[in-house]
Amino acid sequence: MKIAILGGTGSIGEGFALRWALKHEISICSREIEKAVKAAGDYSGTLLSKGLLCCGITGCSNETAIGDADVVVLSVPYQGVVPLLKNLRPYFKDQIVISLVVPMKKNKWFEFTPPKQGSAALEIKDTLPESVKVVSAYHNISAKKLANLELSLDYDVVVCGDDEGAKRTVMELTKEIKALRPLDGGGLASSYMIESLTPFLINLAIRNGLSNLGVKFV
Amino acid sequence: MKIAILGGTGSIGEGFALRWALKHEISICSREIEKAVKAAGDYSGTLLSKGLLCCGITGCSNETAIGDADVVVLSVPYQGVVPLLKNLRPYFKDQIVISLVVPMKKNKWFEFTPPKQGSAALEIKDTLPESVKVVSAYHNISAKKLANLELSLDYDVVVCGDDEGAKRTVMELTKEIKALRPLDGGGLASSYMIESLTPFLINLAIRNGLSNLGVKFV
Repeated sequence: MKIAILGGTGSIGEGFALRWALKHEISICSREIEKAVKAAGDYSGTLLSKGLLCCGITGCSNETAIGDADVVVLSVPYQGVVPLLKNLRPYFKDQIVISLVVPMKKNKWFEFTPPKQGSAALEIKDTLPESVKVVSAYHNISAKKLANLELSLDYDVVVCGDDEGAKRTVMELTKEIKALRPLDGGGLASSYMIESLTPFLINLAIRNGLSNLGVKFV
Repeated sequence: MKIAILGGTGSIGEGFALRWALKHEISICSREIEKAVKAAGDYSGTLLSKGLLCCGITGCSNETAIGDADVVVLSVPYQGVVPLLKNLRPYFKDQIVISLVVPMKKNKWFEFTPPKQGSAALEIKDTLPESVKVVSAYHNISAKKLANLELSLDYDVVVCGDDEGAKRTVMELTKEIKALRPLDGGGLASSYMIESLTPFLINLAIRNGLSNLGVKFV
């Protein structure tokens, strides 16, 4: 598949690029093309240095990457995601869009601050054409651990989405990342649960002297 | 300590009685005293048959048990908990009250249905005298596994409460149950997160063919 990673120059984007490039064509997208091209080169270099053959990682503009993609990964901060997607709306057709977006703010502690739709995923669905299949996943994966290819990630990934086929595709993509277990979290209406886990996990980590927490349902 | 278990004749109550009776005096409470006395006898018998010496498990009325207790465990359904506590209010002084209560209902799936305070724990705090120390914990522990003394419970228990001393006591009680790891979840205002995990876990279990799910933060 062709996977475009919006926010692909950030650390969680790096992890997905490195993990998925072995089987898929990856586009690293950014508003600053030079930055995207540089990151794509760096990630390709990382894989090459480990003797791993990849299907290609290229850097390009958001517009080009989205138009070409089967799957678009939104690894961008909540602040700004809706204006960004409004601008890019003409380039979306029927792609699978994976939202990692968590609306949260920090007061004394981190707080989940959902939009009126109840979750970022539902707001994103409202922003994009109806034919786009929004799936919500990967909110609670440590960027640092994902980007470290030596690590096996023994975590659960709850996947929510209203399109069953798209949800299954994302669950299969999840299985390609070593030790991640995808769990069907139901429709997009349940996305608020996995989104709100993120600030909760960050607070838990801070209070209890832990770091990079993920979740296992056992 | 003297621990009173309201709803102690139910299965989650049984597990706490069996696990804590080795170091504490347990009162099994019920509106039907005969039922409480019978359950206390059964639990004592279970421990005896395993050659375990306990500090005593007695069955008694809610009123007597609460008046005597250091810790009161509320393992009762959300429906009815507020009227029950309003009736029992005169018997509360400065006990630690552990709320396991989850406000939820089942439509097609289980849904978290918090009261206006945001969580059952906060509503319970509003219902009891101010001197009572409400702590929220154990919402996501399988009653079946807790009651099986052969099992080591490799789960995390997030504990929320506004009184630091009471929260520490509950975290210590948690450590007495083999392999449970207590985590400080902050104040009672965060209780909605751990309460809302319960319907989410039940739905996850149903959708994914799993059962008796607990949580580990790793």
